[in-house]
Amino acid sequence: MATEQVTTGQLTPDGSTATATTSIPHPLDQLSVFESDSARGTILKARGLNVTIQFRSIALEEPPKRELCRFLDLEHAGSLTAHTPRPARIAKVQYDVVRADKHIVYIESWVDVVERKEVEKRVIDKVHQAALTTNEFREFSDACFESPIYKEALAEFDLPDGFVVSIDPWPYGGPDADEIAPRYTQGLCFARDTRSGNEDSNHYGYPLPIIPVLDTYTKKIVRVDRLATGGKEDGLDYGTHTKDILSHCKPAEYVPELLSQPLRTDVKPLNVIQPEGPSFQVNGNLIEWQKWRFRLGFNPREGATLHDVRYDGRSVLYRLSLSEMTVPYGDPRPPFHRKQAFDFGDAGAGRAANNLSLGCDCLGVIKYFDAVLSEPDGKASVSKNVVCLHEQDNGIGWKHTNYRTQRAVVSRSRELVVQFIITLANYEYIFAYKLDQAGGITVETRATGIVSVVNIDPGKTSPWGNVVSEGAMAQNHQHLFCIRIDPAIDGHANTIVAEESLPMPMSREFNPFGNGYEVRQTPILKSKYFDASPMTNLTVKMTNPSKLNPVSGKPVSYKFIPSPSQLMLAHPDSIMAKRAQFAQHHVWVTRYKDRELWAGGEFTNQSQKEVDGVADAVARNENVDNDDVVVWNTFGLTHNPRVEDWPVMPVEIHQIHLRPADFFSANPAIDVLGTKNEASILSPGEEQCCASGDVQQNPTSHMQGTGPDLDPRSKL
Amino acid sequence: MATEQVTTGQLTPDGSTATATTSIPHPLDQLSVFESDSARGTILKARGLNVTIQFRSIALEEPPKRELCRFLDLEHAGSLTAHTPRPARIAKVQYDVVRADKHIVYIESWVDVVERKEVEKRVIDKVHQAALTTNEFREFSDACFESPIYKEALAEFDLPDGFVVSIDPWPYGGPDADEIAPRYTQGLCFARDTRSGNEDSNHYGYPLPIIPVLDTYTKKIVRVDRLATGGKEDGLDYGTHTKDILSHCKPAEYVPELLSQPLRTDVKPLNVIQPEGPSFQVNGNLIEWQKWRFRLGFNPREGATLHDVRYDGRSVLYRLSLSEMTVPYGDPRPPFHRKQAFDFGDAGAGRAANNLSLGCDCLGVIKYFDAVLSEPDGKASVSKNVVCLHEQDNGIGWKHTNYRTQRAVVSRSRELVVQFIITLANYEYIFAYKLDQAGGITVETRATGIVSVVNIDPGKTSPWGNVVSEGAMAQNHQHLFCIRIDPAIDGHANTIVAEESLPMPMSREFNPFGNGYEVRQTPILKSKYFDASPMTNLTVKMTNPSKLNPVSGKPVSYKFIPSPSQLMLAHPDSIMAKRAQFAQHHVWVTRYKDRELWAGGEFTNQSQKEVDGVADAVARNENVDNDDVVVWNTFGLTHNPRVEDWPVMPVEIHQIHLRPADFFSANPAIDVLGTKNEASILSPGEEQCCASGDVQQNPTSHMQGTGPDLDPRSKL
Repeated sequence: MATEQVTTGQLTPDGSTATATTSIPHPLDQLSVFESDSARGTILKARGLNVTIQFRSIALEEPPKRELCRFLDLEHAGSLTAHTPRPARIAKVQYDVVRADKHIVYIESWVDVVERKEVEKRVIDKVHQAALTTNEFREFSDACFESPIYKEALAEFDLPDGFVVSIDPWPYGGPDADEIAPRYTQGLCFARDTRSGNEDSNHYGYPLPIIPVLDTYTKKIVRVDRLATGGKEDGLDYGTHTKDILSHCKPAEYVPELLSQPLRTDVKPLNVIQPEGPSFQVNGNLIEWQKWRFRLGFNPREGATLHDVRYDGRSVLYRLSLSEMTVPYGDPRPPFHRKQAFDFGDAGAGRAANNLSLGCDCLGVIKYFDAVLSEPDGKASVSKNVVCLHEQDNGIGWKHTNYRTQRAVVSRSRELVVQFIITLANYEYIFAYKLDQAGGITVETRATGIVSVVNIDPGKTSPWGNVVSEGAMAQNHQHLFCIRIDPAIDGHANTIVAEESLPMPMSREFNPFGNGYEVRQTPILKSKYFDASPMTNLTVKMTNPSKLNPVSGKPVSYKFIPSPSQLMLAHPDSIMAKRAQFAQHHVWVTRYKDRELWAGGEFTNQSQKEVDGVADAVARNENVDNDDVVVWNTFGLTHNPRVEDWPVMPVEIHQIHLRPADFFSANPAIDVLGTKNEASILSPGEEQCCASGDVQQNPTSHMQGTGPDLDPRSKL
Repeated sequence: MATEQVTTGQLTPDGSTATATTSIPHPLDQLSVFESDSARGTILKARGLNVTIQFRSIALEEPPKRELCRFLDLEHAGSLTAHTPRPARIAKVQYDVVRADKHIVYIESWVDVVERKEVEKRVIDKVHQAALTTNEFREFSDACFESPIYKEALAEFDLPDGFVVSIDPWPYGGPDADEIAPRYTQGLCFARDTRSGNEDSNHYGYPLPIIPVLDTYTKKIVRVDRLATGGKEDGLDYGTHTKDILSHCKPAEYVPELLSQPLRTDVKPLNVIQPEGPSFQVNGNLIEWQKWRFRLGFNPREGATLHDVRYDGRSVLYRLSLSEMTVPYGDPRPPFHRKQAFDFGDAGAGRAANNLSLGCDCLGVIKYFDAVLSEPDGKASVSKNVVCLHEQDNGIGWKHTNYRTQRAVVSRSRELVVQFIITLANYEYIFAYKLDQAGGITVETRATGIVSVVNIDPGKTSPWGNVVSEGAMAQNHQHLFCIRIDPAIDGHANTIVAEESLPMPMSREFNPFGNGYEVRQTPILKSKYFDASPMTNLTVKMTNPSKLNPVSGKPVSYKFIPSPSQLMLAHPDSIMAKRAQFAQHHVWVTRYKDRELWAGGEFTNQSQKEVDGVADAVARNENVDNDDVVVWNTFGLTHNPRVEDWPVMPVEIHQIHLRPADFFSANPAIDVLGTKNEASILSPGEEQCCASGDVQQNPTSHMQGTGPDLDPRSKL
């Protein structure tokens, strides 16, 4: 994504034309097209001519922390030269090797792209399944065309004239305990009304109650599951599978030209204009803004990541990422117990990232970043505009009015937003990292898109969801996210402290009138998990015990309050719960380990349990006191759909706020001048009433001063 | 604040020049200056010449609900004429009657301002104290000048040269159980450095450890409390009260010209430009925007209130208000157990409202509203710009990309913001009601201003707060807010339903694979309180049981998820807790009663217990099923100050979201076209990469389609 200015080579922000000879990439740069293709070539050569290689992913393997820190220290010291030893540029290559006898082995190799050498290779046990590729999705419909059992199942229904079948491939979910599942995908079937001639006519209004299951190795439909269409009166039974299964269904259009209602005409334009340009500087993957400085990473699994995040030269975070999420559905009727997506591990947030458009996804002055991803043949390709960067105003940042003089000083809060948006079949997530001038970092998720629906018989209602359109029942489900915070609070040796505010007993000696409360600090010494506790105001502080704030005398820290959102509702003994241990507690504190990036483990696709995720990391029972620690925060929403979520749902927003707590010696935004915005105007018909100037005068407040200050010398 | 277009009289948005003869006020209009002065005259006349009247407040008494509803029904039916009977225009007048023998009685009278007739009068029991007035605050310093005991106390300390004393009067808080307290205020004392000649030099960096107590009736300082300055080693003892009590204290400047550090120079302007003007229409107190229509009220106690809130002609809320808040401090050392403000009941959010300035408090096209308040002599005066109205962009409202065609449809979320800001001595709150296009209403609070500090000995730290500046310890405290929601979900007969998502046991019959969960509805039949329960996803639904959603078959409703913020930490037996029952549970459901607007009761100032607040309302044990119900939601933050909160703290934001839940038949914002914003530009150095147009095309996404749709007729 970026290069340094060490050489005379041209800077190439998207990395797409960078070559090893014209510039030296930063260790956190994505692989360039050249580097990625180099890794491909190395693997093809190493595996030889007797096998076929099906590539799944080629992406940068970030350097081991020890190596990267050595580099970053030199970089921050200004000591980098063209001769500084650098971490090797390593590509992680994921691919299937298909032998002549059709036997398939999934392999992960690490390739030094400069040396063109395979430096490590790992054959993955058959118990694990690699993430799905778009290629496997593409094969789904073709396999259905060829499948007698699929055709037979579909023939049970009369589709209305002008409708065609449209299939959304999904991960298979967790196989049952006794099930032997090779590599499967399942297809959610809908019908699309072609009569408008508009290819964006929304098929989700017409759900078909069948799910074909594809063996992605043999490319055969192995089974077609029949889905229940009943209501609460039917229990787990199927309900009425009539032949005219779609006759009661209704259109669910959302593209403007197909809407049955007129569009609003009274939304007048609201433009964000930055006449002097943005306040940020971008140099390759390096972003600098308002005392913040960080590197932007991007990978096929997690999408955008932040690295080496510093404020005013001081280290705050080593790495910040969205690590995993799972979406379990709460409809107990088989096979919906396998309706559970891990959007990062099963598919890949980076691979699913939208190519963003100017003026559609954000306002103002926008900087876009591209990604280098890989095609099924392993060749690199550039995906344009997968991340956007812009500033926004977030209202008042701080304000105080001196009631004696009526002088108000107001400072607005400017935010820098790093945003990416992913589409997974019916659904979208909008992810943003927001940095502010007061040293805060917000991680925001917005859930939108089209809720997943199944067919329901006419007139019935269901305990497992809500009828959002006639014949379409949106199933109750949860979205459980996990963010990974690798803190570096003024260095890498940090301690996590759980701070609680607790009531105190009344006592003559310590709390005579009962108003006192205790703030109790509990340092986390060994890796562990714990849950949010809003009623004790549980606050997680990431502290550096070796560095005390000069004002308060307390360890410098960043803090966040873990949201007490509902955790995984599925029964702990269910496959659904077992494969998402990370979704069963809010906070996990682990000791840093290279490559341990994914809360649910590397292999979520078709898993029956979480392997090498946060639960296993915690189980190592390692020291995390004054050590290199990682904090994982799980949060989410239980989404029992509303009719208003149809046909495309308004965003459901969730935010986690990382905020300095005795990290600085004062409000870091106190130097943000409360300049009057000269472009704001009164609405028509009102005259200007207030003096302009860089501060605000309150001429007529009713809470005026208390008389003169008291001069102790003259008056006493 | 507004008039209707019934007469030919001129519309007078601020009400300041309205007279009874030129226009007919809307029943929810604030009193005009004319009306207010009419009420004053009526009371002066009624009480006669033998007494002195000290006015505290004159403001509109909103009409009884039955009368107002009758009027609103006619209004919405378009049947209003100049002859329509209207609710009487009633002023509530609060005042002290001072007899010749100095005996003082506090009285509340209700005056028909058109008939100039006192229609009701209530002599308030001595056990209650009226809210403080600014006049009482003003008298505080003068009383100190005159007080020997205050001078004696102050003489214990040497103030540095060039420093003067500055006193912030505070409500007295709850007297001790055995204390006979007439009408008191207490003064928090600081010293201000005058050497810069700048009157806005911040005195809060120099706290003095004394609190004079004023009898506001006799205007005498009755006592000077000495404050502890010790640290954790001192328990509840005083610590070291040295004569040079301020020698270790430091400046705490925040006005730009006094800052010791340079201001940032790299914040480039960000302007919100609305070339076609705002999308809202304002006509007096009537605001219409994006299918929303409501009346804006304003009163001295609550500040801005919303009334008769409708979307697309359908009733949603009868009234929405910030009802009360309390700020209890957790330092158990007397007299800090009386450090507890009720900013609405003790002082009045409307009276404390800032006069807002263009370009300082919000961006874009702004409409301001004025308030009519009363002076100590009872005469009405206009406070300018106490409420502002503007639109803002809140990012993406909904989005879906059809991965088969790569067509993205994106709709932005526009919000209408009704904002007011209050200053109470050191502290400020920014309150906003935000309406959105998807039928949502957000109530937002932002806490900012200067945290309350006390003197602490050099080098010590305290369990009761944090040293935020040398010598200044910011005490731990809580902010507990209560909003009052008077729903009118398609009418006034509503039922509150508590909805929880609950795990289910695994069972072959009902939940064979353990993924199912139950959504359980519990209607509230009798008035009651209950607490937030995030781990069961407790959602409060305000439903109309008589009206079913045509799609889902469920009662139409609006919902919110009560925030599980920490409740009052003070011991239940403490005076602090007893006077704020409302702060001890998150949700209170009561039957509507005229004039029952204040969660903590009318008289919070100097109270020892909550009287006629929500707890008493719930205790009536009334029917609230399919009835005229009110929902009260308490939320807040436990604020253990950070060094970063000094000298002025960055905003701490809290939001409550009221959202439609099966109220509409689809996403109400589906008709908001995802127009490309033509004013957004690429950051310098990037060329335009994407086609323009009103929809977004994703040319290179890696999650492309799954092949063609299946035509069942041609293929099968």
